Amino acid sequence: MTDFLSRLKQYLPAAAICTDPDRMAPRLLDQRGRLHGAARALVLPGSVEEAERVIRLCNEYRVPIVPQAGNTGLVGGATPAADGRAILLGCDRLNRVRQMGAADFSMVAEAGCTLESLQRAAAAEGRLFPLWLASAGSARLGGLIGSNAGGTQVLRYGNTRELVLGIEAVLADGRRYNGLHSLRKRNIGYDLKQLLIGSEGTLGFVTAASLRLWPQPKGQACALVAVASIAAALTLFQQAQDMAGEVLTAFEIINAAAMQLVADQHAELARPFATTPAWTVLIELSGGESDAVLSERLCALLSAANTPDALVAQDLTQRQHFWGLRERIPSAQKRAGSSIKHDLSLPIAAIPEFVQQAAALLAAHMPLFEPVIFGHVGDGNLHFNLQYLGETGAARKLPVPAFDAAEQVANELLYPLVLACGGDLSAEHGIGRLRLSAAARYHDAGERALMATLKQAFDPLGLFNPGALLSGQGNL
Amino acid sequence: MTDFLSRLKQYLPAAAICTDPDRMAPRLLDQRGRLHGAARALVLPGSVEEAERVIRLCNEYRVPIVPQAGNTGLVGGATPAADGRAILLGCDRLNRVRQMGAADFSMVAEAGCTLESLQRAAAAEGRLFPLWLASAGSARLGGLIGSNAGGTQVLRYGNTRELVLGIEAVLADGRRYNGLHSLRKRNIGYDLKQLLIGSEGTLGFVTAASLRLWPQPKGQACALVAVASIAAALTLFQQAQDMAGEVLTAFEIINAAAMQLVADQHAELARPFATTPAWTVLIELSGGESDAVLSERLCALLSAANTPDALVAQDLTQRQHFWGLRERIPSAQKRAGSSIKHDLSLPIAAIPEFVQQAAALLAAHMPLFEPVIFGHVGDGNLHFNLQYLGETGAARKLPVPAFDAAEQVANELLYPLVLACGGDLSAEHGIGRLRLSAAARYHDAGERALMATLKQAFDPLGLFNPGALLSGQGNL
Repeated sequence: MTDFLSRLKQYLPAAAICTDPDRMAPRLLDQRGRLHGAARALVLPGSVEEAERVIRLCNEYRVPIVPQAGNTGLVGGATPAADGRAILLGCDRLNRVRQMGAADFSMVAEAGCTLESLQRAAAAEGRLFPLWLASAGSARLGGLIGSNAGGTQVLRYGNTRELVLGIEAVLADGRRYNGLHSLRKRNIGYDLKQLLIGSEGTLGFVTAASLRLWPQPKGQACALVAVASIAAALTLFQQAQDMAGEVLTAFEIINAAAMQLVADQHAELARPFATTPAWTVLIELSGGESDAVLSERLCALLSAANTPDALVAQDLTQRQHFWGLRERIPSAQKRAGSSIKHDLSLPIAAIPEFVQQAAALLAAHMPLFEPVIFGHVGDGNLHFNLQYLGETGAARKLPVPAFDAAEQVANELLYPLVLACGGDLSAEHGIGRLRLSAAARYHDAGERALMATLKQAFDPLGLFNPGALLSGQGNL
Repeated sequence: MTDFLSRLKQYLPAAAICTDPDRMAPRLLDQRGRLHGAARALVLPGSVEEAERVIRLCNEYRVPIVPQAGNTGLVGGATPAADGRAILLGCDRLNRVRQMGAADFSMVAEAGCTLESLQRAAAAEGRLFPLWLASAGSARLGGLIGSNAGGTQVLRYGNTRELVLGIEAVLADGRRYNGLHSLRKRNIGYDLKQLLIGSEGTLGFVTAASLRLWPQPKGQACALVAVASIAAALTLFQQAQDMAGEVLTAFEIINAAAMQLVADQHAELARPFATTPAWTVLIELSGGESDAVLSERLCALLSAANTPDALVAQDLTQRQHFWGLRERIPSAQKRAGSSIKHDLSLPIAAIPEFVQQAAALLAAHMPLFEPVIFGHVGDGNLHFNLQYLGETGAARKLPVPAFDAAEQVANELLYPLVLACGGDLSAEHGIGRLRLSAAARYHDAGERALMATLKQAFDPLGLFNPGALLSGQGNL
């Protein structure tokens, strides 16, 4: 097998192959620090041709391939097995914007571009690339596509799936997929790019994509609204859709526990309300009208909805403050100790009933954990996290075995309830390795069998990302 | 093989099986009257269970299956081969709206519902199902999904693909796909419904779908704008995106020949301009604002764009008049004689160059045909049709062999040019049977090989819609 590496070195420039343990170390640990992998090399092709050579050689030598982009995923989808047989296939050197099509609202970029660099490239031409995640500085396009990333503007602009017009990739068996067009409509057979989007690196390696751009909004308006219940939040959401549907860009929810955590852990952020409300909604409008016109529409909406406790941002600083409260929840949770994360997908109308039943179950069975609930309620996506409160006076950080056991209990309480409500285990984070056993247990067996049929057709040797997404593909 | 029909009769109610030649005849002829097929029976399951029984029996007896919904497609995708071996599998009896989710902007409907019935069901609950086609009264959901239908509001709301949240289907090998959720975000593996959307009935039979609904617009504004060139139309399109992107619902173009044909053939429609302009643009805005506010935004846009010849609709009657001009182009073409149809997909920015070069080629090589150009220019989708002008004084209807030969010449002139511009053969009509030889010739061979891999994985016996979309699957 040294043969494999020496052959690889013949095919690729030196910059494309790294076996230095220090450089590899951070890429072998997942974002949440829960998985530790090993790899024979980190391979960084600089062109689609180089990627083809790597993947064909891996086919020849039966070497597993774990694609990894920015390594910002939350479910361990880019961490190789500990046996060290795989290579890590990175897109760092594929980092050019190949083509800017401002006139037809599209651009072609390589998989290694960070989300922030894509946003900047679009903005420089008066366009908007509307994907918005907290990890924009390090998340890379290849990973955004592999995970079908969501974020805070999905309500208006869709998931990554809706923002990808075309894809260039090398498939698992070494065939190239030349789907890099920027057409809005193209009915010429199966839409193969859809297979790669959200496939978590199990079908091939994306090298570039053509992305859909939008006009830069001319104005924005933002408000924090205190509501007494999640049902009231949903009523407000329907009114917002009816009165401002086309400019409604975000509709986020934050429960009292989440708001309190941010206040405790991020004292630099002023508390918006004198008393923390049971639920806080963050609404944002944006579009082709001015700040003033949009603020007026927002005020009209809040007035029609009869929401007395509403703060409308008066300027950019205040808008950033409102968003800061929302975006600092994950870091506040981390500072406060251990938390079990969920990324639940629910039919929007089922959310109030789900939250009530879930809270009752958790109070009864997991009294040492407090539900920290926030997320993209307008998309039916709740981050329903459980913050460990600790025994009286004890540290709030659970050791790994106790944490794993508690997570198991939480899953067994929540997932059956989610499914009974017509929801599903993951809205935007995916399955990866950390949710694989849950998916094997709770995800529809018929659908998983169809996924296996597809995997078998495109990756008959099972080389791509074994142990992620699909079971029975090796494991950690 | 009589055995097959008698077994089928054991499994299904009498209403589900039709072998009456008179009832079958109109379903064996394609919408454009170009293909004449035959079938051993028209089978109409009334539930997903009945569909499963039919498809399993067809697998057992190796009987080909041609799914057919409203039979309104333009490429012969639902016409069986003339050998009469196949059954026609219709969705007529699957015609219920199963669930209306006005609160979360979704509904579940069976595949046999007509588009018009879906629009009405949504409107009754204050919601919008935004797909809009001239054939709304007869096109059925199953066909809209199979063809990934487009229409006149794609610019704002997307193709059928973007409007489908979940699908229930029986796949080619008889397995059921239970994907009928109404979730906005769901990252739990390969998005299998994407395979069925646009697959032209070659992978399975869709029985129901969960659809995304939108708020009913509160106001509308509509204008006809005369422009001197298609480049000027595109400049106007960019300004419209920038000034009114989120309320821009349609941006259609009509060339002088198309406008003249409508004036000639539909004398009941008043001519909007004293002199027919080289190009006419139809712009529509709609959204959560009133007619008055949207009209004001439209006037501001037209004023900023410096378009002196613009007519803004003053009321609903005038708006319907403007749309009537656009929607009567196909019938005017039919009345005027033979026409060769194209449904080209182009990068928006490449349209002016393409139109200029295509017109020059056609003038040189096909002087008896006049380009009648119209379509969804905001989506890069041109219906670039060629109207037969006839020899002097002769009938304007070409006999079949001469028409077929002319179509062949036109394709050989236009398709290479489309591809050179970064476009493709079909934007919204699909491939079916009528464009199959063109697809085999001009569509990327690598992509077609991947399609074949997928087909083989899900329909190993090649039973579903042989002769459509993919070559080498039998033919007429």
